Parts: sequence; C-alpha cells; structure tokens
Amino acid sequence: MDLADLRAAFAGRLLADTDAMAPHLTDWRRKWTGRAIAVAQPDTAAGVAAVVRWCKAQGVAVVPQGGNTGLSGGATPAADGRSLVLSTARLQRIRALDPIGQTITAEAGVTLQQLQDTAREAGRLFPLSLAAQGTCTIGGNLATNAGGVQVLRYGNARDLCLGLEVVTAEGELWDGLRPLRKDNTGYALRDLFIGSEGTLGVVTAAVLKLFPLPAAQVAAFVAVPSPAAALALLAGAQARLASELSAFEMLSETCLQLVLQHVDAARRPLAWPSPWYVLLEVSSAQGEQAATEAIEAVLEAALEAGHASDAALSASLAQFRSLWALREDISEAQGAAGPTIKHDIALPIGRIPEFIERTDAALAQHHPALRLVVFGHLGDGNLHYNLSPPAAGMAREAFTALEAPVNRLVHDMVHALGGSISAEHGLGVLRRDESARYKPAVELRLMQAVKQALDPLNLMNPGKLLGTPIPPNNAPET
Amino acid sequence: MDLADLRAAFAGRLLADTDAMAPHLTDWRRKWTGRAIAVAQPDTAAGVAAVVRWCKAQGVAVVPQGGNTGLSGGATPAADGRSLVLSTARLQRIRALDPIGQTITAEAGVTLQQLQDTAREAGRLFPLSLAAQGTCTIGGNLATNAGGVQVLRYGNARDLCLGLEVVTAEGELWDGLRPLRKDNTGYALRDLFIGSEGTLGVVTAAVLKLFPLPAAQVAAFVAVPSPAAALALLAGAQARLASELSAFEMLSETCLQLVLQHVDAARRPLAWPSPWYVLLEVSSAQGEQAATEAIEAVLEAALEAGHASDAALSASLAQFRSLWALREDISEAQGAAGPTIKHDIALPIGRIPEFIERTDAALAQHHPALRLVVFGHLGDGNLHYNLSPPAAGMAREAFTALEAPVNRLVHDMVHALGGSISAEHGLGVLRRDESARYKPAVELRLMQAVKQALDPLNLMNPGKLLGTPIPPNNAPET
Repeated sequence: MDLADLRAAFAGRLLADTDAMAPHLTDWRRKWTGRAIAVAQPDTAAGVAAVVRWCKAQGVAVVPQGGNTGLSGGATPAADGRSLVLSTARLQRIRALDPIGQTITAEAGVTLQQLQDTAREAGRLFPLSLAAQGTCTIGGNLATNAGGVQVLRYGNARDLCLGLEVVTAEGELWDGLRPLRKDNTGYALRDLFIGSEGTLGVVTAAVLKLFPLPAAQVAAFVAVPSPAAALALLAGAQARLASELSAFEMLSETCLQLVLQHVDAARRPLAWPSPWYVLLEVSSAQGEQAATEAIEAVLEAALEAGHASDAALSASLAQFRSLWALREDISEAQGAAGPTIKHDIALPIGRIPEFIERTDAALAQHHPALRLVVFGHLGDGNLHYNLSPPAAGMAREAFTALEAPVNRLVHDMVHALGGSISAEHGLGVLRRDESARYKPAVELRLMQAVKQALDPLNLMNPGKLLGTPIPPNNAPET
Repeated sequence: MDLADLRAAFAGRLLADTDAMAPHLTDWRRKWTGRAIAVAQPDTAAGVAAVVRWCKAQGVAVVPQGGNTGLSGGATPAADGRSLVLSTARLQRIRALDPIGQTITAEAGVTLQQLQDTAREAGRLFPLSLAAQGTCTIGGNLATNAGGVQVLRYGNARDLCLGLEVVTAEGELWDGLRPLRKDNTGYALRDLFIGSEGTLGVVTAAVLKLFPLPAAQVAAFVAVPSPAAALALLAGAQARLASELSAFEMLSETCLQLVLQHVDAARRPLAWPSPWYVLLEVSSAQGEQAATEAIEAVLEAALEAGHASDAALSASLAQFRSLWALREDISEAQGAAGPTIKHDIALPIGRIPEFIERTDAALAQHHPALRLVVFGHLGDGNLHYNLSPPAAGMAREAFTALEAPVNRLVHDMVHALGGSISAEHGLGVLRRDESARYKPAVELRLMQAVKQALDPLNLMNPGKLLGTPIPPNNAPET
C-alpha cells in the first residue's frame, strides 16, 4: 500500500513509524493495544474526507480517534494492523461563538476544557463536564454521547448538540451545522451520528448549546442513612429547586474512606461516618444567598424527615471545590488501591435501592471477599457499581478471573430491573457482546440495517459497538 | 383484496364504508383529501403489528394517523386509494406512571391533554403544550417531533421522550420502552423514529419525562419597540431567570388587533399600542412572590435600557390566562379574518431582526397589498411569519395564487440566513419538495439510505417527508 498517495491527499500529519504511532494504538486504561497502517492527523474537515476516501478506495478500515480517553476500547485499532487511525486532534478551530443565540461552533479536536474556557470567557456556560476534560475532545464526546456530572440539569452530549458536520463513509462532507433550536425537516441524522462511536462516520465539527453562567453555585455534602433516603432527598430537592438542582451524586462510606486514604488533601467533611452520602449542587441565577437559602430549606426538611443525618454546605469557592474533590477523586483513589472491576450502569431511578440491596447480597454470597466501591450520578439513575480487592489484598490473577462472572452477575441484575449496562461510556469492544446479549433481536436488526445502509463496506470502526450481523427475521432458524 | 382476512387479524375496529372513513381522509385544515382501502383502528400494539404485516403481505401502503391535527398533510392518504389508514387512536392506555423516576408510559392514542391531566393528578408536569392538545395524540406528537410554547424551557417532543415502542415496517414490535435518563448502548433508534412522520414505523407507546409542578407561574405582556429590543429583553431574562423562563413569545400589533377584533373576550392589556409585544412566562419552584420579584427585576432593567416601553404582569390565574389567550388566539383570529398563508420557520435567534426587516421589505416591494401577521416562539428562534389579505379584502383566487411565490420568497430568505423552513410542523406533503430544494444533496442521500434500510418496500407513509430518491453520488450526471 502506497502511503505516499495518502500523504499527498491531505494537509496535516501522517505518522507511520512505531514510536510516533504508539500513543494512538493503546487506550487510556491500557486494556487494549492494536496495530495500524498509519495514524493520519488532518488539519481540516476536507482533509478528513480525503483520508476516508483514500481508505475506501484501498479497502482500509478507519478508526476515528479524538483525545483517546475512552473507557470501552472504541478508539483502539484491531490487532490485525490493517486499519488506519484517523485522529481529529488537529481540528482545533472555534469557528463561531454566538452569545445571543447561545451557541458555539467548534471543530472535533477542541478539548472539552478549551470549550468550557472559551464559553466562560464569553460569559457563557458550556456545561458538559467529566474527569477527562483536559484531554478528551468534543468530537469524541459526541461520538460516545458523553455524560458526566451535570446531566441532571443540562443533559448529555446529545442534548447539548444542535448541529453536526460529519464525514460520511463515502468520504463526503455533510454540513449539518445548523444552529437552530427547532428544525423538523427530516430524519434525526444528527442524533444517529451522535453516540455511534465512529461506526457510521466521523464528526468533524459541531454546533453546541451555551447557557448563562450561573450567578452562584453552592454544594452540600449530606450524610444519608440509605440509598432509599437519598432518593427521598432527591425528590425533595427536585420539588424545591427544580432545574436549579444541577448535580446529585451519591457515594458510599467505602468510597470516602478510599479518598481519605489515597488523596493527601482530602478531609472528612462531617463529624461522623455514615453508610452513604449525597453531594448535591445548586446553580442559581439569583446569587449566593438565594442558593444557600434554597439548599438549607431542602436540607432542613430532609433532616426532619430522617432522610439525612448531617450536612456541610460550601461557604466559599475553596470549600465548594474541596467537597467536589471528594466525589471526583474516587476513581483515582480506587485505582491507587489496586486493580478494579468497573460498571457503568443505568437503572430506573426508583429501582436503585432494590438494585443495590439485591446485587450486594448476591455478590456477598458468591464473591464475599470483594470490596464494593459504589458511587454515581444518582439523579440520572447512573451508578458506577465498582469493585476492588479486599483491603487485606488478593492475588491479581484471582481478582482478574472474577471480572467476567462479576460482570455477568451485575449485568443480569441490571437487565432484570430494566436498566442499561452502558449508561455513559459506550460499548466499544468492552461491552459490545454483552450488550447484544440483552438487546431485543428486533433492535439489533434495526441497528445492523442502519449500519449496512450508511457504511455498506463496513470500513468505519468495524467491530466496535456492533458485532456480527444478526440474521434477518425471515431467515431459517439454525 | 379480502378485507375479511384483515378484520380477523386484529382486535379493534375496521372502517370500510365511505361515511365512517371520511373524517380520516381529510386533514384538519381541509387542504388535502385522499382515499383509502380502509381505516384500521387496532386496540393494541400487537394489533398494529398485525395490520402492518397484512399490509406488507398485500403490498398495501400504511398511512399512520393519530389525532389527525397535523398541518402538513402527513397523515392524509394519497388520492390513488391504494393505501390503508392505520389509526392509533384506540391505543389509549396509560401503562405506568413513576413519580420517583418522573416518567409516564403512555400508548400512542392518548391525547396530549389526557397526558397533561394524568401527570398533574400525580403532582407532576408534562410540559408539551400546543393548540391542538385536546385532540392531538402523543403518538402523532412524537412522529412529528411537536414543539409548542414550552420548548424554551423543556424542549420539544424528542427532548421529552426517553423510550419508544414501535411497530417496524416488517410488522415487528420493537420494545424500546426504557425509562432511563442515560443509555449508551447503540444507535439512537428512538430519535430516528421521532420526527420521521410515520415513514419508518409506527409509534405505539412511549416513556416520557415528567417534571415537578412549578409552585407559581407569572406572565408578563410587554410592549417592545422592535424585534431587536425583544432580543435584548430575551438576553436579560435568560441571564436573570435562567431556566425559570419558561416561555418567550413575540407578536406584532397587527396580531393583537386581529385578536381584539375577532375574539369577544379579548381586551387590550396595555394603555398604548406598540409595534411589537413580548409575552414572557416565569415558572418558579419558589412561589408567586419570588416569581413576581424576578420578573419585575428583568422588566425594570429593560424599561431603563429602552428595550421595553410598558408591561402588564398577571396577578391572578384569570389574568395569567387572559394574557396567554391574546397569544393563543392569533391563529383563530387570523383564520376568522380570511384565507391565510402560513410559515413555520426557524432562524438563528440573533438573525431574526434582520430576517424580519429584509423579508418585510421584499414583500412590501413585490406584494404590497398583503398584511403581515408575524408572531412566534422568539426564545426558540421559531416564527410563524404569516400573511393575510389586506383589511379591505382581496379576491380569494388572487390571494391563493400568491401562496407559491410568497413561500419561495420567504423560504429563500430563511435559507440565506441559515434557517429551517419547518421548525415544528414537519414536512408531510406540504413542505417535502421545498425542503429538498434547500437540503444538501449529501443529507438527502443519507435520509434515503435510512429509509431504504428500514422500509425497503416503501410501504410506510410513502411520499411523505421524502420525495423521489436522489441518485447516488457516483451515478452519472443526467
């Protein structure tokens, strides 16, 4: 295969030597490593289209990659070395910012942090917020429909996107960059590309929603006796605060202990331990005092009803940040404590207490040594129901061998309670086959039909999100 | 064709005589009338599937119909009489209401009003709200991605839907009724069916989002000197009220005059006429006083800056309703004043003043007799830029002859300013070909590919939304 033709086809960088390619061939958590013909980094959307056209002509698979921070292996090439990594990292222009229409138009390679900062400089909020924001790109956020800590109030990446520019599997550039709040002129192609993990096309730019910057934000760290009490607190907060409630996170005492143990700056925020905690945040257009009064009213009612036993409110930006750090540092603290088994699940919100109770019990029965590290975005019904080895330690191989049976146990319970086994991380290769296990056959066939229609040669990130085609319903049973 | 087989295939009603079918063969505005083999009204989703399977076996086209209140002819059968109208009106069960997860699961034939009422009885808000709500059904609302007056705060029908149950073109039932706030396990089939106007499948049920009932709602009717001033008021209101701003409508003095003239109960709400008015609504979780104070702060700043010249606030539910009636009765009043030419357009919000100025000028030049009746959801960038004959009257034929050239003029301007020619009414047959005129060829090909993949026999509402297939890009130019 002549890479000179490819090199001549677009402006940007083409990496073909092993050292230069290496960071693009392994994922963030170093769970998957692949090989590639080359890594192309075009400077423009037209360059992305040229690369895809070259790949199509050569029959080479395209693996789109943004900041390469995904957790499901969706941006890592296969081991066969026959695909090309197409990095959008050099598409870095902010094309427009409209403070009146409250939109920003950014290219795929702009990092989430850059987007937030650009919006803030214009007096606006871009609310998508997650741990990898310094490195992840908006193209990747859209390809995986990223979630994070502000979904409760502002929605996920899909909800924040008004328009897209996409290079199709044909290597054509679709300009769907419409900055409109309403547009009913055909199929929701935008929503189809969002969350498709690069299997239908490559996002090169997007029009995103901005919001007014809140006048004040106040956080409260609340001790609650149980997940059911946390749900009651959530209901009270929603009734009193409506959309001023901008985050509602839950974590267990085990999570807090891990953070206190592994993060130097962390301090216990309340005098006494509690089995569970809620971190809630209010974003008010009306200033600090109004926010504090509103949150105090919610907490007083919860204390009186027995849904909370103690609470600390942030009275300064430093306190606000240190309360949030207790939540945000859980993943890092869990990693410092040894290997991990992670789940990214969603449930009907009201069934979360039942899920925790039943799954905890099943794990205690079948895998009593494991330590539960449960936290998540309770307001969205999204739990990171994670596990660690016991505090006394465990052979790494023994722990690793538990991953598959524990996944099965947890995901079977999720399915039984009407949930999803991938709330915000996507399927990639990590959850592709497990997801197919739980999906209705009709849904898998519809997805395969869409894939076949938009990528008939199966060159766009093959093997990610979707596995082997399901036979059509009129095929003979085998 | 043997209708006895069809009649035996499902539980429900099958109308085949002319009188019984008649209401289903003509649209709400009586612009289109078609013919049909029969009108099937199954009682269950399984019955809908059975009807679609019968149609597929017979090669009969299916025209899904909800409350038959659409404005674009999307639910009227063609004149050839070879299709079957599939009414979902008898799918009327509320299957579930979850006050904790804040969701309601309703069948397609439940009217929007019934949904709102059921939610309110449970102390929750279902915010979708539009003129036809007593008759339109949630199935139709989803098929057309309906908008209305609360989109600014709560989003359109797509934004309010978490899960769908759909009968596919194969006659299979897809159970995608997941009541989850986050679910990244594959392509956004839900969003693809929403807004597809029955051309990909038939919605039989949906899981919809509910919200806390606001503690108080206050409306203000505000005189503004110009659309640009209205935009400045919008910016101020968004900064101060954030998501408590639940509606932001604009109307011209001509609109108000039509309402005063044709609606008995209507009274001028302000002492002096103004060229334009804004009706804004605040929904507060914190009660009447907080809402009134917030709205007063916004209005004081606007009066001081010259963005508003006068304002009336509602101080009772009766006043709230009478202010809203001035906005809601415009369509009826315009209809009472004679024939109408209507547009349902969306623009980047900041370009609305320019659009109005340039389009008004072009119409004044080419069609000086016409009366402009301009109003709409300014907060969403959605205008109903309508026209009426002059107050002195005009021959109906002469007026009707103007529809096509006026549409062209208005829509060309919308396109030049980056807007959409169908903001919330959908394409149906009314805007199908005009929309294709403005869409990028790549987008039309993607839409055709999706249609071909999910409805290969072209039996689902053929001829609606999409016209004749576009040749693939590698076909020879003709």
